[in-house]
Amino acid sequence: MHHPQAASRDDAAQAASDILVRLRARAPRVHCITNGVAQSFTANVLLAAGCVPSMTLSAEEIGSFVASAQALLVNLGTFDAERREATAIALQAATTNKVPWVLDPVFVDRSEPRGAFARELIVRRPAVVRMNHAEFSALAHAAPSRDSTMSYARSNRIVVAVSGETDLITDGQRMASIANGHPLMSKVTAMGCAGSAVLAACLAVEADALRAATAGLAIIGVAGELAAERSSGPGSFAVAIIDALHGLDAATLIARARIN
Amino acid sequence: MHHPQAASRDDAAQAASDILVRLRARAPRVHCITNGVAQSFTANVLLAAGCVPSMTLSAEEIGSFVASAQALLVNLGTFDAERREATAIALQAATTNKVPWVLDPVFVDRSEPRGAFARELIVRRPAVVRMNHAEFSALAHAAPSRDSTMSYARSNRIVVAVSGETDLITDGQRMASIANGHPLMSKVTAMGCAGSAVLAACLAVEADALRAATAGLAIIGVAGELAAERSSGPGSFAVAIIDALHGLDAATLIARARIN
Amino acid sequence: MHHPQAASRDDAAQAASDILVRLRARAPRVHCITNGVAQSFTANVLLAAGCVPSMTLSAEEIGSFVASAQALLVNLGTFDAERREATAIALQAATTNKVPWVLDPVFVDRSEPRGAFARELIVRRPAVVRMNHAEFSALAHAAPSRDSTMSYARSNRIVVAVSGETDLITDGQRMASIANGHPLMSKVTAMGCAGSAVLAACLAVEADALRAATAGLAIIGVAGELAAERSSGPGSFAVAIIDALHGLDAATLIARARIN
Repeated sequence: MHHPQAASRDDAAQAASDILVRLRARAPRVHCITNGVAQSFTANVLLAAGCVPSMTLSAEEIGSFVASAQALLVNLGTFDAERREATAIALQAATTNKVPWVLDPVFVDRSEPRGAFARELIVRRPAVVRMNHAEFSALAHAAPSRDSTMSYARSNRIVVAVSGETDLITDGQRMASIANGHPLMSKVTAMGCAGSAVLAACLAVEADALRAATAGLAIIGVAGELAAERSSGPGSFAVAIIDALHGLDAATLIARARIN
Repeated sequence: MHHPQAASRDDAAQAASDILVRLRARAPRVHCITNGVAQSFTANVLLAAGCVPSMTLSAEEIGSFVASAQALLVNLGTFDAERREATAIALQAATTNKVPWVLDPVFVDRSEPRGAFARELIVRRPAVVRMNHAEFSALAHAAPSRDSTMSYARSNRIVVAVSGETDLITDGQRMASIANGHPLMSKVTAMGCAGSAVLAACLAVEADALRAATAGLAIIGVAGELAAERSSGPGSFAVAIIDALHGLDAATLIARARIN
Repeated sequence: MHHPQAASRDDAAQAASDILVRLRARAPRVHCITNGVAQSFTANVLLAAGCVPSMTLSAEEIGSFVASAQALLVNLGTFDAERREATAIALQAATTNKVPWVLDPVFVDRSEPRGAFARELIVRRPAVVRMNHAEFSALAHAAPSRDSTMSYARSNRIVVAVSGETDLITDGQRMASIANGHPLMSKVTAMGCAGSAVLAACLAVEADALRAATAGLAIIGVAGELAAERSSGPGSFAVAIIDALHGLDAATLIARARIN
C-alpha cells in the first residue's frame, strides 16, 4: 500500500500536477447539485479549471446529465424538497454508471434535519466528504484531528477532507495535509463549495480518491495564494482566483503546493 | 427623545461608525430570504461587512437558522410559494426569538399580488422597510417626501428608509437624510437588496432602528463612493464595492458620511 | 425585400449601431425566464446595455411583468416545473400584448425531455431562436450551415441565430454572419444566456427580428473583444465585458463590427 505521509513532498505535488494536466486535457463533465448562492461561482470555477459544468436539478433530466458526466457534486447548501428528489435520482444514476461523487454537507452544524440527511447520504458511499471544522464536528461528534478523521473515514469507508488552515485528507489508512490557501478564501461566499467542485473534477480523472481530493484542495489553495497577491479585498480576490485557476500550470502547482 | 435632525452631522456620523465597529467585532449572523438574482452578491456584501450570512429557504430548517441569527432580511425580489412559506415560518421564529427584521418590497410597483403581500407583512411590524421611490409610492399612495414618509412610518409604527439621490430615514418622529452613494449603484443588479442586507446587519448590533438604518445606508453609500473612484464601469464597480466595504474603517466613514 | 448579404458591411454595422442608440435612449424592460446560474450575470449585462431587467418566475405575477415589458427571453438552462408553468403564462401574456420573445434552448443536446419542450415552444413562434452548434444540431438534425439554418428558419418561420466562431443569423431568406467575439466568452458561465438577453433587448427596439438578432450578437461580440484586451483570465473578463458593454458607443460598434 502506498503511504503519502511517507512519500516525499515532491511526489505528492507531482501527483497533483499530473491530475491538473489530465483535467486540462480531458475537460470532464461535472454535474453539480448545489445551492443557488454557489451555482454561478462554481460553474465559473469549473470552467476555469477546464471542465464542462452542468447544474440542472430537474427530476426529469438530472439522470441523463449525471449518466453522461464523469463526476458528481452533492452540496447541501440549499436543502429543499427539489434538491432532495434530484439527489435521489442523481445518486441512482451515479451508482448505475459508476460516476464518483463528492458530498459537501454545508451548514450541517446549523440544522438537525440537514444533519440527518447528510448521514443518510454518507451511507450511500460518496467517494469523498469535504467539510469544514464545524461540519466535521457535527457529523463525527469529535473535533477534527488526525485520529478522529482517520477513524471517521475508516468506519464510513469514505475519504474525509477537512478544510481549514491546514487541510486534512484521509481514507482511514493514508493521510495527507495541505498548508496552502489564504484567509480571504473565507470572505467569499461559495468558495468552499467551489473547492468541492474542483475536488469532484479531480475525481473525474483520478481513480484514487485520496489523491484526487489532495490534488483538488492543493489546486484551489495555490490558486487562492496567487489570487491574493493581485487582490485588494474579497471582491477582487473572487475575480482573481478564477483567473489564477485558469492560468495555473503544472510547474507552478509543483513549486507552490505544500502537501505533507 | 433623541432627535438626529437636531444633532450635529458629526454626532450622526459617529453613531454610524460605532455601529460599523460593533459589526466588525461581533460578526452577527444575518439570515436572508432573498431572490435568486441577489443571493450571491448579498452574501458577499455581508461577508465583506464582517457578518455571517445564511440564505436557506427550506421550510424544515429556516426556523432554526432564524432563531440562531441576530437579524433577518425579507426581500420580495422573487415572490413564489416557497418564499412565502419560508417567510411565514421565519417571521414566527423572529417574533419568538426577538430577531429584528427588514422588509425590502422589491418591485411592489410592478405587481398587485406582491403589493398585497407586502402590506400583510408590514402589519407584522418589520423594524425597517427599505424602498425606492416607486416602491414607496405604490405602498403609501404618495410620492416620498419628509411629510409622507413620516406619516407612513407613524401610522405603521415602522422605520421607513427610502433610498434615492438623497436617502430619507424616519421613524415617524425623527428624520435623517443621507447624501452619499453614486449613480453606478443603480447599474448593478441587487445593489439595493445588498444595501438592505447591510441595514439588517446594523440592526443586529443596534437596537435603535432609526440609527441602524441610517448607519446601514451611510456605510453602503460611502463604500459606493470609494468604489466609483476605482471603477471603469458597473462590472468593476460591483467588485470594487465589495473591496471597499471590506476595507472601510471608522475614520473613513466619519470623514465621508453626509448625514443630516 | 432587403437583403443584408447584398448590403455593404458598413450598412449592417450602421443598422446595429442605430439599434444600440435606441437601446440607450429607450431603456426597455426585458423580462427573463432564465436559469439560476445565469440570472445575476444576465441582469447585470442588461443593466449595462441600458435596459431594465426583471426575472420573476411566480405564476401569480409573471403575466403582469411580461405584459409591461418590451421583450421576453425564455432560456431553458434550468428546466423545471416552476419554469415550465411560468413559460406558459409568460407566452400567453406575450402573445396578447405582442411582446417579442427569444428562445435559448440551452443544453437541448443533453436531455431528450428538454428537446421535446423546446420543439413545443418553437411551434409557438419565438421571434428568434439562439443556439450553439450542438443545440442546433440536436433540434434540426443537421450540422449548422448556411443551407441548414436557412431551411430550419424557413420551415419554422423564425429567425435562427447560431453562435460560434462565426455567428450565422437567418430568417430563411436573408442571411447575416458576424465574425466578432473572443474565445474567453466560452470560459464564462451564462455568457451565451446573457448574449440572448441582449438579443431580446434589441428586439424591444427593432421590429425586424433579423436586424435585431444581428445587432445583439454584434454588440456582445464587440464588447467581448474590448473586454479581452483588458483581462488576464475569465474572471476579469466577465467583469470587463460588463464595463465594455456599458461604455460601448455607436462609433466603436461601427468601427469594430464585422458583419457580412
